[in-house]
Amino acid sequence: MENDPEAQANVFLGVQRPLRLECGVELKNFPVAYQTYGKLNTEKSNAILVCHALSGDQYIANTHPLTGKLGWWELVVGPGKLLDTDKYFIICSNILGGCMGTAGPREINPDTGKCWGLDFPVITIRDMVHAQAMLLDHLQIETLFCAIGGSMGGMQVLEWAATYPERLCTAVPIASASHHSAQNIAFDEVGRQAIMADPDWRGGNYQEEGTIPYRGLAIARMVAHITYLSEPSLQRKFGRRLQDRTAVTFGFDADFQVESYLRHQGSTFVDRFDANSYLYITRAMDYFDLEGRYNGVLGDAFRNTKTRFCVISFSSDWLYPTVESRRIVHALNSVAANVSFAEIESDNGHDAFLLEEPEFWRVLSGFMDGAAEHFGLPNYALSKTD
Amino acid sequence: MENDPEAQANVFLGVQRPLRLECGVELKNFPVAYQTYGKLNTEKSNAILVCHALSGDQYIANTHPLTGKLGWWELVVGPGKLLDTDKYFIICSNILGGCMGTAGPREINPDTGKCWGLDFPVITIRDMVHAQAMLLDHLQIETLFCAIGGSMGGMQVLEWAATYPERLCTAVPIASASHHSAQNIAFDEVGRQAIMADPDWRGGNYQEEGTIPYRGLAIARMVAHITYLSEPSLQRKFGRRLQDRTAVTFGFDADFQVESYLRHQGSTFVDRFDANSYLYITRAMDYFDLEGRYNGVLGDAFRNTKTRFCVISFSSDWLYPTVESRRIVHALNSVAANVSFAEIESDNGHDAFLLEEPEFWRVLSGFMDGAAEHFGLPNYALSKTD
Repeated sequence: MENDPEAQANVFLGVQRPLRLECGVELKNFPVAYQTYGKLNTEKSNAILVCHALSGDQYIANTHPLTGKLGWWELVVGPGKLLDTDKYFIICSNILGGCMGTAGPREINPDTGKCWGLDFPVITIRDMVHAQAMLLDHLQIETLFCAIGGSMGGMQVLEWAATYPERLCTAVPIASASHHSAQNIAFDEVGRQAIMADPDWRGGNYQEEGTIPYRGLAIARMVAHITYLSEPSLQRKFGRRLQDRTAVTFGFDADFQVESYLRHQGSTFVDRFDANSYLYITRAMDYFDLEGRYNGVLGDAFRNTKTRFCVISFSSDWLYPTVESRRIVHALNSVAANVSFAEIESDNGHDAFLLEEPEFWRVLSGFMDGAAEHFGLPNYALSKTD
Repeated sequence: MENDPEAQANVFLGVQRPLRLECGVELKNFPVAYQTYGKLNTEKSNAILVCHALSGDQYIANTHPLTGKLGWWELVVGPGKLLDTDKYFIICSNILGGCMGTAGPREINPDTGKCWGLDFPVITIRDMVHAQAMLLDHLQIETLFCAIGGSMGGMQVLEWAATYPERLCTAVPIASASHHSAQNIAFDEVGRQAIMADPDWRGGNYQEEGTIPYRGLAIARMVAHITYLSEPSLQRKFGRRLQDRTAVTFGFDADFQVESYLRHQGSTFVDRFDANSYLYITRAMDYFDLEGRYNGVLGDAFRNTKTRFCVISFSSDWLYPTVESRRIVHALNSVAANVSFAEIESDNGHDAFLLEEPEFWRVLSGFMDGAAEHFGLPNYALSKTD
């Protein structure tokens, strides 16, 4: 079924050989939910792994089953689009620790028959990538033409490049970083504390107890959402404009549009996301420290790599600012890796990678086309003239 | 008693004539708690009003009665210090809406004999300043040598300059803004939502019901605290260093120093601050929009002013960035006001105004000395040779 134009599937991995997590726990017979788009060619050389971000999932280019909304990368992935599903076989799996079908705190612990909750082992970006590699084994895909992703997706891409260089032709980390900064950790910690402060969280056991810590999760989403937008874009979108009123009310309602918008972001997130997953995924991001693993020498993560890199940042992204992407580029340069770098001028902040950004798309398109030609993708010429 | 070297007092204001608030409510016979330092000279020309910020209070240069810690501006205010109490008579009153003795949601509503709670009227920066002016009337001080304050204190200073120009020789707004931006409002709204999401908030009625919404208030403080520090200072202070451990624990404890620090900030704040006050004061800040009041022409707030201004910002302050101070300076220039401006190079972020910042102190000292000479402070020459 992997070759259906648009297919979703669930598979149990680690059946023969469990996945040994960085924390030491072995995860066996665990579900991974994924989507594919396009067809794998006979040479199996046109596979692209899209790595999703904290609040993303595998529904990149089709209707989301819970929200009924378009996929989060619908602008980029599809027939004739930048990641052209007429040409590429696109895979996106829900990350380990997620809440859309892959093993995570919301799933059933096969040993107890109950939800994992906080008994789920704390996972890392590397664990996520190992699970993705196991999925590729299952799909009998040896080599990825590309691993691409924004934000935490970019961390997975970097981890792929460091851990499985021989399986990766190209790597595109977008609006990302090779480690979480103190400020990144701080914002994540506020979100976690908001969730854990909600009495309905029940020490993580809310599923068994039939509650939902929606207030805490909404607060976590609200604070995170501020970090996804630049100050200029907030000013442009909302400024000090009032919400459905002509004067302030001298009260604590959402007088301002920006308040109403944030509240809406919080309340809709709760309908599609799991609070414990939020804890696990933010923790994985906080633990991410690629240079730390190589004693502070990030270049060592990529030594002798043959992967071609395209590193992209956005000028107004203050969550993972350009300086973080430059650090990656310098490390790649230090080991003479093949790397392109572009800082895209945009006032859309961190979320720019999800939005219509013509310059970003031009850079990415140029890189992908060049790499397809370089790696001799069989259908490349054909697709170009279709 | 106002002339004691260091004195604290409570006074009831609005006894003869109530304070008409911007929301329309009249506040009568309401308490204002304040501290004074130094002596008022016989000419009554050496009074400085220090305006405190969101989480500050009147204890600027003496031990705080609840925390036992030094005053928040102990570095700047005292004998022989920058704001020299041998020379100036320094006044700081707890703001309207505060929780250290001045009328606010924690105080008793004289009409009901119960705590105000959410029945307290929503107040504005202008209301705070009107209450301060009433305090000066009570102290029989017609003219302030200076109004000075950082952050929300700076907003009060600007409001003073706009509302009582004839009572103000000099104005020093530090790390402040003439209105709250969409991002400022957004962060405040997250804090308010965190408080109101705490079941112990009890719809604002927690005092009557004997609970304390400490979890919500701690979350609010944590997120605000991140905005007070710059990314570089967080990196310098904490980076990715672990807290009392040599490796991550693969759990949700405070593995990182920055997490531990934030949790501490949250939990200690709860011991000295009132959750409802936090709602009211952040609301006052969000409502602050001096140019809005003058149809978008900020200069009109200061037309014909004789006040001398010293506007100060810090290069790494991203909560009230330099561009906000420049907006104030441009407005003052547009009406040919007397204004000095300095952007202080510092990586301490917004909180720099509370810290040891030699360049900031040099600028402020130069301005104060010049102004004291210009306005012919009687004891000026004497103090200089003391």
